[in-house]
Amino acid sequence: MSTPLKIGVLVSGSGSNLQSIITQIENGTIDAEIVCVISNRSDAYGLERAQRHKIPAIHLDHRRFSGREAYDVALVETLREYGVRLVVLAGFMRIVTPVLLNAFPHAVLNIHPALLPAFPGLHAQQQALDYGVRLTGCTVHFVDAGTDTGPIIIQAAVPVLPGDTEESLSARIQTEEHRIYPAAVRMFAEGRLSVNGRTVTIAPHPATPTGSLENPAVEPPA
Amino acid sequence: MSTPLKIGVLVSGSGSNLQSIITQIENGTIDAEIVCVISNRSDAYGLERAQRHKIPAIHLDHRRFSGREAYDVALVETLREYGVRLVVLAGFMRIVTPVLLNAFPHAVLNIHPALLPAFPGLHAQQQALDYGVRLTGCTVHFVDAGTDTGPIIIQAAVPVLPGDTEESLSARIQTEEHRIYPAAVRMFAEGRLSVNGRTVTIAPHPATPTGSLENPAVEPPA
Repeated sequence: MSTPLKIGVLVSGSGSNLQSIITQIENGTIDAEIVCVISNRSDAYGLERAQRHKIPAIHLDHRRFSGREAYDVALVETLREYGVRLVVLAGFMRIVTPVLLNAFPHAVLNIHPALLPAFPGLHAQQQALDYGVRLTGCTVHFVDAGTDTGPIIIQAAVPVLPGDTEESLSARIQTEEHRIYPAAVRMFAEGRLSVNGRTVTIAPHPATPTGSLENPAVEPPA
Repeated sequence: MSTPLKIGVLVSGSGSNLQSIITQIENGTIDAEIVCVISNRSDAYGLERAQRHKIPAIHLDHRRFSGREAYDVALVETLREYGVRLVVLAGFMRIVTPVLLNAFPHAVLNIHPALLPAFPGLHAQQQALDYGVRLTGCTVHFVDAGTDTGPIIIQAAVPVLPGDTEESLSARIQTEEHRIYPAAVRMFAEGRLSVNGRTVTIAPHPATPTGSLENPAVEPPA
């Protein structure tokens, strides 16, 4: 691709994962452009983040629509206006419908704060504490019609420690979220992800030597 | 406790986890004694392992009993004859009933080849491959009346790698099983595990300094 990937990000809250992606785009790690940030809530701090980085920030109030499908029709319209090719959910607290998924096949990403398929749905960190697991983590996945059931791209694990609260565990998981979500977006932007059924294949990084290897090296490593 | 913990191990197959525990008892890492190994199958290699280490090996054929409860009554009788205080399931391919669990409250351990609550039941490794997770692992837990639902003691994670088969993934998980199952048995033998609802608390190792610390040290560290 000659032009960078155009990304639309959907948020409902603070958008700290949005920030981690903005940072890696701005420092040149991800070759992509966030062309719009959309929130169903006018007070989402993610909208303010977008504005600070000169990204169009759009409030699309779900209460103005008759239902989920009608809302998603408007979402798709807006995303298409901006030429979006990848939709990134970053704390978007709404269930998306096939209206959105069919408009962006295999091009809607989400991150969930658990090692799926364990603890899908809301309050995943508290679910993990209540169950008494020793390891939990986060999962970046393609979104499908189910709740947190789509094909998995990356997972990272963290320990649950004695005395953990929902807050302390969420913070530990979030550190990993901010590592793996930008990494998955980068893989997508580099065209390295392919989906076959439930399996996501990650092609080697273009910089990885595959065929021949000259000796001595004629170019220094990247 | 002045006498070492008496352990009974139940197997149906090769008993490689049995071997990992035998090894750590023989090298002095775990202060315990395996007083009997019981199998529902006469051809279980675990029985042969036991005999090689001079451990009583007992074949208790489930087909001779009218049902699960009747079988477990016989199991409990045998375990009590040997003075067992901890029951370790090591590839025991039978569902245990409250008959066994009530006779050994919070004293029946199992290991499962997945990061529970993900992928309970049979063929956990194939379930993980079919789902497409990037991380899986194994879980040592106290056994309760459900299938792989009991309070968790230790979990270890391993990556699922491109091209993995059920065999290659199982082997990678088994390496971790052989580390964490003896470790959990050791914690039990040291009296360091307590169960409160779904939460297992692990008391610090007796060698861990807790109260005071003299300086300079008056004894060398263990």
